[in-house]
Amino acid sequence: MHIVEIIRKKRDGAPLDTDEITWLIDEYTHGNIPDYQIAAWLMAVYWRGMDAREISDLTQAMTRSGVQLHAQDIIFPVVDKHSTGGVGDKVTLAVAPLVAASGVAVGKMTGRGLGHTGGTVDKLESIHGLRSELTQNEFRQILQQHQLVLSGQSSELAPADGKLYTLRDVTGTIESIPLIASSIMSKKLAIGASHLLLDVKCGNGAFMKTADQARLLAQTMVEIGRSAGLHTVAAITSMEQPLGHAIGNALEMKEAIAILHGTAPDDVATLCYHEAAELLVMTSKAPDEHTATQLVQRTVRSGAAVEKLAAVIAAQGGNADLITHPECLPVAPIRQMLHAPQSGYIAAINAEQIGLTSMYLGAGRQKKGDAIDHRTGLMLQAKVGDYVQAGDPLVEIHARTADEAQNIQSMLLNCYRWSTEPIPTQDLILDIIRP
Amino acid sequence: MHIVEIIRKKRDGAPLDTDEITWLIDEYTHGNIPDYQIAAWLMAVYWRGMDAREISDLTQAMTRSGVQLHAQDIIFPVVDKHSTGGVGDKVTLAVAPLVAASGVAVGKMTGRGLGHTGGTVDKLESIHGLRSELTQNEFRQILQQHQLVLSGQSSELAPADGKLYTLRDVTGTIESIPLIASSIMSKKLAIGASHLLLDVKCGNGAFMKTADQARLLAQTMVEIGRSAGLHTVAAITSMEQPLGHAIGNALEMKEAIAILHGTAPDDVATLCYHEAAELLVMTSKAPDEHTATQLVQRTVRSGAAVEKLAAVIAAQGGNADLITHPECLPVAPIRQMLHAPQSGYIAAINAEQIGLTSMYLGAGRQKKGDAIDHRTGLMLQAKVGDYVQAGDPLVEIHARTADEAQNIQSMLLNCYRWSTEPIPTQDLILDIIRP
Repeated sequence: MHIVEIIRKKRDGAPLDTDEITWLIDEYTHGNIPDYQIAAWLMAVYWRGMDAREISDLTQAMTRSGVQLHAQDIIFPVVDKHSTGGVGDKVTLAVAPLVAASGVAVGKMTGRGLGHTGGTVDKLESIHGLRSELTQNEFRQILQQHQLVLSGQSSELAPADGKLYTLRDVTGTIESIPLIASSIMSKKLAIGASHLLLDVKCGNGAFMKTADQARLLAQTMVEIGRSAGLHTVAAITSMEQPLGHAIGNALEMKEAIAILHGTAPDDVATLCYHEAAELLVMTSKAPDEHTATQLVQRTVRSGAAVEKLAAVIAAQGGNADLITHPECLPVAPIRQMLHAPQSGYIAAINAEQIGLTSMYLGAGRQKKGDAIDHRTGLMLQAKVGDYVQAGDPLVEIHARTADEAQNIQSMLLNCYRWSTEPIPTQDLILDIIRP
Repeated sequence: MHIVEIIRKKRDGAPLDTDEITWLIDEYTHGNIPDYQIAAWLMAVYWRGMDAREISDLTQAMTRSGVQLHAQDIIFPVVDKHSTGGVGDKVTLAVAPLVAASGVAVGKMTGRGLGHTGGTVDKLESIHGLRSELTQNEFRQILQQHQLVLSGQSSELAPADGKLYTLRDVTGTIESIPLIASSIMSKKLAIGASHLLLDVKCGNGAFMKTADQARLLAQTMVEIGRSAGLHTVAAITSMEQPLGHAIGNALEMKEAIAILHGTAPDDVATLCYHEAAELLVMTSKAPDEHTATQLVQRTVRSGAAVEKLAAVIAAQGGNADLITHPECLPVAPIRQMLHAPQSGYIAAINAEQIGLTSMYLGAGRQKKGDAIDHRTGLMLQAKVGDYVQAGDPLVEIHARTADEAQNIQSMLLNCYRWSTEPIPTQDLILDIIRP
């Protein structure tokens, strides 16, 4: 094997052999191929793409580069759920306890937010005392005992992906479907769940801006799952406006708890119930979506869902009281209401810009490793399609300082588009891709 | 300026601004951009190409990255000549003294051989005592005094090109017309001659395998010259079979001297006279090619050409006696004649394979920095189109050991194709590209 030959082969548009891909990932992981050769190879992959077999080989080579947890050897079935990331996306925090409390185990590792998008582990860490960095043993024990674990992403899983992602970030090779799909799926395969539900976000607040891109990414990941024996389904969901009302870490944690109590806004609660039901059908816990949805609703009403979350928070060292006393979550010192500058129907709330505004308030990271403030963020008082009178509450700003709250007001107002006519409602779930 | 933005811009097919290209080359030369980002950029350039203005900007930024000799400030006109490299190509060694002795100064820096192709400086160094590594002052003084200097390539000229070439070599980004053309021309512009004749080789023994590729490279370089104010003409010449009869360093030096004496094989001598005449016309030393050719022939007959070479060899510390006593050049210990295995017309002599055979004998380098043996090589006894009887001398092998001479015999015979019919002669000069 010779790396220059492999670069040239991909550069010239030929598919790489399984052996070549495996060798490249192994040698790169062990530091035997320098970054500059992989950078050239990544740009050639960006250019020429990869076929399904190559993508599958690449993913599995990355999975084998580190620890594999084999979650389904601990408990079966065990499901995993992944979102490609958006604004106000607290779905995982609700779906995981919902599914676990409905009788199907959930083993979840979850990442940090970057740019305008939030990360599930950041939201979890707004809970006082909660430890998200679990050892492999802790991950296994909590999963076995509670049928649910919510861990941060371990760097021991798929370290090849970690190295490649860092390099892609500085070489203009992020936006490649084969590289995105293999990056996500290598970490999922390393956990070793039996079933996986992917939520591929689509729209201005998502990484995939168009439905075509999102569908291609979803199909690619479902195919990787199929060829690796991981039963994978992908939902393509809209990310044109923020999901739910809360944006920001403690604010979203609170909204996730409200979903489990059955008291949350319609849009995000409905999406959570749908995704939970899909997982129950996938694992044959329910025979069809109707029965599954009924089971999910019973789980909410009985309090079992919120109790499951409380148990896991306690198991991970967090203060479980907040389930009944959400005021235990940290609160920003400044709360300021922004009022509607005009009357009309809200035609659009730009999710990406809302996410960036929230980042400015300290709720998100400009770059990896930046500190965040769990208390800050935004509470939307109305969503797309709502009719608002001039002077009505529009957004509650949760800020560190009065200056910051003041500074973002015009940015915030720029996120809104208005209409004099009613706005037709749009489905959140755009498509479901099955193997 | 941000390097990731520049990579992404080129990746997406947009032309880069002059400022962006200049910044990238400056920062890379000074070590402020890591190799991995330049590697990704190089692959994006390989993919997307560059327009004429970008190529010109890139070339001039590389030229400005190091020392510039401004040769035309020392003497005017002063010509430069460059070959893209082939097998048995000793043309520069003959053309440079021919032109200088005809009254137009020649300031030449010349590179080393690699792979199947030879390098002019390696051939020069087969002369006992000759120093090819000249200081800038020596280069200027010898040029002024003798109207001719034959120096090795200084690493102080266009160091950005040196760094980029090293990186291209290990990242599969060599074969890109914009990158090849800017690499060659940046070093030419740094010398600062007033006129440049390019010999773009084309065929199996050359870097450019087809006439279309060679023409595109030639046009690109002529355009770079035009936009930088360097009067540039490119000859596209055939490199299907080796040039002349000698392949190997001392053997080719000897053949170059024979050309200057007027006693060399027709093909290579004719090409040298043509190229010399072209340079005399370019610099208005002669009004047309016919007059120029007569001037060149007079220069040979008078002995002025060979005396010019002798003077420069002496000025650079070499043993000038070899001009009249070529037996002073080093000789391989083993000489073995390979005879024709069959009767017939020689239909082809694969130049690339002949070059690799010669490399095996020690006359060339497998990789940069390898030592070479100046004594070894091949003397072809017949060329394409010649009729040979079975048992006639075909190639004289000049080897370090009898074993090596023996080992290459079948490789050598595989270089030949035979015909029972006469082979039409083909012109060496395929095209001339003028600004």
